[in-house]
Amino acid sequence: MIVVMKPGATPEQVQHVVALVQDFGLKEHVISGTDRTVVACIGDKRTVDKGAIENAPMVERVVPILSPYKMASTEVKATKTEIAIGPAGFPMGGRRIGVIAGPCSVESREGFLRVAELAARAGCVGLRGGVYKPRTSPYSFQGLREKGFDVLVEARKLTGLAIVSEATGVEELAALVEVADVIQIGARNMQHYPLLEAAGKVNKPVLLKRGPSAMLEEWLLAAEYIINGGNRQVMLCERGIRTFEDYVRNTLPLAVVPELLERTHLPVLVDPSHGTGHSHLVPAMCRAAVAAGADGLLLEVHLDPEHALSDGAQSITPAALEEVMASLRKIAAAVGREA
Amino acid sequence: MIVVMKPGATPEQVQHVVALVQDFGLKEHVISGTDRTVVACIGDKRTVDKGAIENAPMVERVVPILSPYKMASTEVKATKTEIAIGPAGFPMGGRRIGVIAGPCSVESREGFLRVAELAARAGCVGLRGGVYKPRTSPYSFQGLREKGFDVLVEARKLTGLAIVSEATGVEELAALVEVADVIQIGARNMQHYPLLEAAGKVNKPVLLKRGPSAMLEEWLLAAEYIINGGNRQVMLCERGIRTFEDYVRNTLPLAVVPELLERTHLPVLVDPSHGTGHSHLVPAMCRAAVAAGADGLLLEVHLDPEHALSDGAQSITPAALEEVMASLRKIAAAVGREA
Amino acid sequence: MIVVMKPGATPEQVQHVVALVQDFGLKEHVISGTDRTVVACIGDKRTVDKGAIENAPMVERVVPILSPYKMASTEVKATKTEIAIGPAGFPMGGRRIGVIAGPCSVESREGFLRVAELAARAGCVGLRGGVYKPRTSPYSFQGLREKGFDVLVEARKLTGLAIVSEATGVEELAALVEVADVIQIGARNMQHYPLLEAAGKVNKPVLLKRGPSAMLEEWLLAAEYIINGGNRQVMLCERGIRTFEDYVRNTLPLAVVPELLERTHLPVLVDPSHGTGHSHLVPAMCRAAVAAGADGLLLEVHLDPEHALSDGAQSITPAALEEVMASLRKIAAAVGREA
Amino acid sequence: MIVVMKPGATPEQVQHVVALVQDFGLKEHVISGTDRTVVACIGDKRTVDKGAIENAPMVERVVPILSPYKMASTEVKATKTEIAIGPAGFPMGGRRIGVIAGPCSVESREGFLRVAELAARAGCVGLRGGVYKPRTSPYSFQGLREKGFDVLVEARKLTGLAIVSEATGVEELAALVEVADVIQIGARNMQHYPLLEAAGKVNKPVLLKRGPSAMLEEWLLAAEYIINGGNRQVMLCERGIRTFEDYVRNTLPLAVVPELLERTHLPVLVDPSHGTGHSHLVPAMCRAAVAAGADGLLLEVHLDPEHALSDGAQSITPAALEEVMASLRKIAAAVGREA
Repeated sequence: MIVVMKPGATPEQVQHVVALVQDFGLKEHVISGTDRTVVACIGDKRTVDKGAIENAPMVERVVPILSPYKMASTEVKATKTEIAIGPAGFPMGGRRIGVIAGPCSVESREGFLRVAELAARAGCVGLRGGVYKPRTSPYSFQGLREKGFDVLVEARKLTGLAIVSEATGVEELAALVEVADVIQIGARNMQHYPLLEAAGKVNKPVLLKRGPSAMLEEWLLAAEYIINGGNRQVMLCERGIRTFEDYVRNTLPLAVVPELLERTHLPVLVDPSHGTGHSHLVPAMCRAAVAAGADGLLLEVHLDPEHALSDGAQSITPAALEEVMASLRKIAAAVGREA
Repeated sequence: MIVVMKPGATPEQVQHVVALVQDFGLKEHVISGTDRTVVACIGDKRTVDKGAIENAPMVERVVPILSPYKMASTEVKATKTEIAIGPAGFPMGGRRIGVIAGPCSVESREGFLRVAELAARAGCVGLRGGVYKPRTSPYSFQGLREKGFDVLVEARKLTGLAIVSEATGVEELAALVEVADVIQIGARNMQHYPLLEAAGKVNKPVLLKRGPSAMLEEWLLAAEYIINGGNRQVMLCERGIRTFEDYVRNTLPLAVVPELLERTHLPVLVDPSHGTGHSHLVPAMCRAAVAAGADGLLLEVHLDPEHALSDGAQSITPAALEEVMASLRKIAAAVGREA
Repeated sequence: MIVVMKPGATPEQVQHVVALVQDFGLKEHVISGTDRTVVACIGDKRTVDKGAIENAPMVERVVPILSPYKMASTEVKATKTEIAIGPAGFPMGGRRIGVIAGPCSVESREGFLRVAELAARAGCVGLRGGVYKPRTSPYSFQGLREKGFDVLVEARKLTGLAIVSEATGVEELAALVEVADVIQIGARNMQHYPLLEAAGKVNKPVLLKRGPSAMLEEWLLAAEYIINGGNRQVMLCERGIRTFEDYVRNTLPLAVVPELLERTHLPVLVDPSHGTGHSHLVPAMCRAAVAAGADGLLLEVHLDPEHALSDGAQSITPAALEEVMASLRKIAAAVGREA
Repeated sequence: MIVVMKPGATPEQVQHVVALVQDFGLKEHVISGTDRTVVACIGDKRTVDKGAIENAPMVERVVPILSPYKMASTEVKATKTEIAIGPAGFPMGGRRIGVIAGPCSVESREGFLRVAELAARAGCVGLRGGVYKPRTSPYSFQGLREKGFDVLVEARKLTGLAIVSEATGVEELAALVEVADVIQIGARNMQHYPLLEAAGKVNKPVLLKRGPSAMLEEWLLAAEYIINGGNRQVMLCERGIRTFEDYVRNTLPLAVVPELLERTHLPVLVDPSHGTGHSHLVPAMCRAAVAAGADGLLLEVHLDPEHALSDGAQSITPAALEEVMASLRKIAAAVGREA
């Protein structure tokens, strides 16, 4: 942590900051520059509220130096984490790109099983399907809830795909863990700490989506909550951020992929469906995500997007999925991987 | 809802959209313009997923016309809602500006009671104090949790102030309702629907903060979840949005205040502490918020901000609070109110 | 400047950075912490490209310490700058709030003179009126250009108000300086450096609007260009930033006002017309801006907003202006000023 | 254009809007829905200021239907535009991806010629090199200006590459047109209309960068200014937008590529150097951009990025360029193109 004093700070004011720094159990190092004095602080600073010092007289600002996350970081674990998902134990984070596809929500047994078969045939390794749906409006379709469980299990039996499904609250987690292979924590819950802590106690991989306005560090700290709770099987999934752009539902910032690959050992997935919000943009962004280095994709596929009960605009058809998968195989090869 | 066809759409493609519209139980109205055909749809459209139609061939986009929220809207209830809070039943949303102040989190009995007394003396009507703290890092101070309950109760007895405290999950709600006068739902939980639904079942006012990237409609729909659940006592609190600005923790968009006053009958509060993140900006933004028409303020006050365990940088001292309150009385008078 | 090394940087890599720092004429100061080594650099660093060092092996990031602007800063000049505008020499930046009002563009002689009279009667000190209009679309009304000059001059004679008008390019500046009292540089030109440099050579006050995505420092550096060119009469005008919010044309971040009052000695104005984009939000934001400490306002007023050739949605009527001015007088008094 | 009335609008208020619509030369179409009345307006509406109507009593909002740009649109010209650049007439917008590389600014003759040779050898088709540099700070290196012309010409002779160089103002355009093959209009000048108009009069291709907060339509309207002025040789270049993300200089929104390919016939380039701001992210984003469908890339390359006078942090070395080009050839093949 570096404390920058305002120009004109007196020796007493600098000394006051030094005393605060020592209160926090850190060692200070005062550097007097041409225009300003800065106080560099040495020690493990992860638990200190840096804001506290900002309030001292004549402090201009406090610059944190240490990344606040630890166990998610390549500083602590340099080798890539591979996470085995589903009955087949597909290694997410390995050489092969793992594509997880399926409808936003399970709407009917027949429809879901049909999508499952087509996804498996197209080469996907996971099947997404929400039974608990977090919906912006209380008047929208909220999912089949527990009534959807049997269909999830049946789809896995039928196809061998890993079932990926979202828990929208702590109270749903225990039951969902019994039927799903991967627990999804959605963008709106990225900072719902009771859920993160509960996810740290389960023995299933967790797919953690980035919140639409989450800083990179906040996202990694959310992963840290889960790991810190005892569950090291965390996958990150970028699904777009909220910006001023209006031709997309979210802006998909793909540079996050190479940045994460450098900062963390966790597998990195991309969701081009939420990441764009429009099916005509999805195939190109699938290709771009894999070219950028993503370990996997999360895709919304619906038999009849025009009649989907949720996320119809961003769902592609099984036929489009097949084309996407074919092109991904080429892109993956171009970057030395498989799909 | 207006469906805009791309230029060159054939009569068959328009007819396909008309059929979809009728499927949804809406009545269509086709208008052929110079460059484009649009299909206006008449009926109650709140439950339709507009995205579904966007996927039909040659549809350019779908423009929703109806506000998706109802019960929070001035269309349904034109008169301002006043919500009585605390032992004194202070009417939030009435002529007098209600200021709620206190530390980010309850750290100690003595400190909290002292702040409570000073807040009461300064003219505040509510006392904020978190016992459950949602913290970005798992390594930060997480609040006293249930051990803080007695202090909350004692502070209310001592001062008569309304106790405002945050529930960070459904599981905390039942206990917190017994001790707090107002349940706060924080920015990170604005779209945690299980909590919104649970808050709809309690018989205490709810203070609902805006999420840092929430659209106005998403915020009002979150309020709608609570009202729809049965609890009409909802107050809205703007606490800043996430933008590119870096001299503030959040950008405080005060135009939201007059906009909300036109769209909703619910009381509107502003939190200039989170809304700026820096104590030196708080007093000016308190004045600006009241001048813009806010019904109340939520303020972080700490006896010794330099040593606060959380949010030190944005906490003002009790002495600064007293000055702020004095200036707010003048501003309130200037806009025909009291503080 | 602080250079933060990645964990695991070797002594040779640190030494390489030290050599680079010395190349730049700075003195280094190496601090070895628990997890990381940082190199603090001492000296005047305004002309160094910090990015250069970021490229050295094992450098994590470079943190600038010094504000890159100088002459706009309170560090160099602590006393507030007052700028006399118009025939009456109204002191912008002084105790009295200066309101500049008028139509977006001069559309007709009669209309403009009538607005001028009403603005003067309402207590305004300046009259805005564009003759060169930067328009997003080439198909929109582009202003009267030089044909509007006579009307500007006539309006000043009639009312004594200071004429504020925008130069959209270097080539227009010379002529405009002859007729206007204040040269406006619009948001879209905030980083058009040839215009900033040219404005540094004229002997008229300049009103510099913030660009819709400009950082605070970029804005102050744009002012620095003008001051550095020789013209110290610069006023800053916040007009809203581009964010994800969609109920406004721009988000008006009023915390910029107290922040600027601390960082710079230049007068600070606010434009609630562009800052909201909707006339129904303008009066409340005028009050909020003055309560936040603004030295002046820039307002769009039109006799018949429904038929305005540009910016109709955000223009208020002369009758609304009169009411706004009355309420501003009360707000100004509440913050110890006049309007 | 659709005018949405507020609920409760009287027939007289609707009639008032109808009269306004007719004033604008449009034909109206009134539709009375369950909750609201809307007035659909038919006719060519590009020159109407929609805001004007928003000000009429009980109008809730005005929804534009027609894209405001014309000549840049695939509605007017469906076939892709290919633009021949440089002595070799490389067809930008054709099957082969065109990579333009070089330093941010020309710093010395030797360095520039060396980079030119290496860029040519690596397979680039254009050479970037600024002589006029728009710099945020007046204290930064401002470019060689006219003194750099000879070096540009020499580099073209030496390598046959197309010279791409930025005009930062109208006054520089005439001279630059004589030496450069492609005139770049930078992000900060995207809405500097005098420059756009002047660029419409020259007989050289123009590379128009997106402004950091420009909406897609604003960008296409800026292109429309140039085309409308008479110059149809416009290439678009995405270089990142300003968002809350702080690990990048700008957020690179690659979904803009497939969206533009659908909306416009103009070639679409991507600048991953400015689009990320950090050299370690550039190679992955080059690959992603081509996978997303980009027609070309604009890249900053420097012999010694650690000592670059500008943009050092985002410049890659010639050796890195060579590797990037090799991987791009594979990605291009994967999407059915060449590089």
